[in-house]
Amino acid sequence: MLVKSQVKYIQSLGHKKFRDAEGVFVAEGPKLVGELLQAPNVRPAQLFALSEWIRQQDLKSGHADTQSVIEIKQTELERISFMTTPNQVLGLFKKPAFSSQDLSGKVTLALDDIQDPGNLGTLVRIADWFGIDQIVCSEETTDVFNPKVVQASMGSICRVRVTYQSLEKFFDGHPGVSVYGTTLTGKAVSTMDKIKSGVILIGNESKGIAQELYPYISQQVTIPRAGHAESLNAAVAAGIVISHLVAPARQTT
Amino acid sequence: MLVKSQVKYIQSLGHKKFRDAEGVFVAEGPKLVGELLQAPNVRPAQLFALSEWIRQQDLKSGHADTQSVIEIKQTELERISFMTTPNQVLGLFKKPAFSSQDLSGKVTLALDDIQDPGNLGTLVRIADWFGIDQIVCSEETTDVFNPKVVQASMGSICRVRVTYQSLEKFFDGHPGVSVYGTTLTGKAVSTMDKIKSGVILIGNESKGIAQELYPYISQQVTIPRAGHAESLNAAVAAGIVISHLVAPARQTT
Repeated sequence: MLVKSQVKYIQSLGHKKFRDAEGVFVAEGPKLVGELLQAPNVRPAQLFALSEWIRQQDLKSGHADTQSVIEIKQTELERISFMTTPNQVLGLFKKPAFSSQDLSGKVTLALDDIQDPGNLGTLVRIADWFGIDQIVCSEETTDVFNPKVVQASMGSICRVRVTYQSLEKFFDGHPGVSVYGTTLTGKAVSTMDKIKSGVILIGNESKGIAQELYPYISQQVTIPRAGHAESLNAAVAAGIVISHLVAPARQTT
Repeated sequence: MLVKSQVKYIQSLGHKKFRDAEGVFVAEGPKLVGELLQAPNVRPAQLFALSEWIRQQDLKSGHADTQSVIEIKQTELERISFMTTPNQVLGLFKKPAFSSQDLSGKVTLALDDIQDPGNLGTLVRIADWFGIDQIVCSEETTDVFNPKVVQASMGSICRVRVTYQSLEKFFDGHPGVSVYGTTLTGKAVSTMDKIKSGVILIGNESKGIAQELYPYISQQVTIPRAGHAESLNAAVAAGIVISHLVAPARQTT
């Protein structure tokens, strides 16, 4: 059974202000919730689930205990869900705390003002696929704990450390680091050598990389165009650049 | 002014059955509509626009004439729009007729059961970027004239020939063509030579390439994984594979 205050509380978590204040985010569906319950750095605060999901769980094997699960009906799930097709369980999880980033010996992704939640979730998933375990976002970038980003990341959100700060301050704090910026006038990415460390910088969906960040770029990289499309989707472009630049040193397949 | 029958007609075009029967599709927003008005192979059937859009147009420079434009109010646009944020103009365009595909001397993209409209639109845009001008879709693949696909393709829909047929029949009809299928157990795409012709086959978002298509694959290709994400988005994966395999022979940047 759900009470009104719980519905209101969950709905408030659609807003960054409340997520920040509560330190909590929303994840939905058996697959994603199951993955987060197994993640070492994420703890459940409260789960709202249909009886069918509860029956399928061996709650003791995860981090959840029976006290943190509230059984609800389908109509109640529809009231609290952020998805168009609610699926069995909605979980509230405590946001993992990530400390400042160490850049040495690894590739870091930097995102300048990515606005679309689907793009951001896809970017987190791309980073996770290629073994990039940290992302630094400009302060204007969409919140990674937005429910749509969480769903689009498909669990990668618990494996990739995503932090927010002014990218100018970030680059100022790491002088000498190689920064590969994706632009329309750089070196063809297919002709470049693989990198073992450095920062790959991706710009905003329509405006690209902000002018004030250009002085920090050591090498501009470009995906050569053979046809007529005006642009590539930001996540697709990032996937292509990363696949060409980042050596699969620790291949897991 | 809009009449009720027009509203009903436009809404019906959200369904493939009616789009097929009428041979018409919907495109919205000044940028996309403007691009389609300039496209040689697409003709407008009817435009519904706010006065501000009509004023900005030099209608004689495009294919539209004044008779095909109906001035409507913002509230009327909201009633007929398929977008969450309607933008000045909604156009009905006659679907271009594409004949059967010639595969010689060029790279063709084949899509097996792509379901998400956003993914399909992004795939059309990727093809257009890399100079691939034809896509063959399995009959189960989402309709390319679905309004969401049209919007996501950002105009590439008028430059890339997209046809639908059984992929088994398609491959049977082109014996000897090289088929590069994206799977999880193929050759690392970064180690492969560039191709000048052949078919790149992309599978369904969750199920991958259908088993019955495997006999047609000449070379399985894989994007090596270094991290832990379970999969890559289908459009991202296609973009990566195409960027590695297709030589930018006719670079336009």
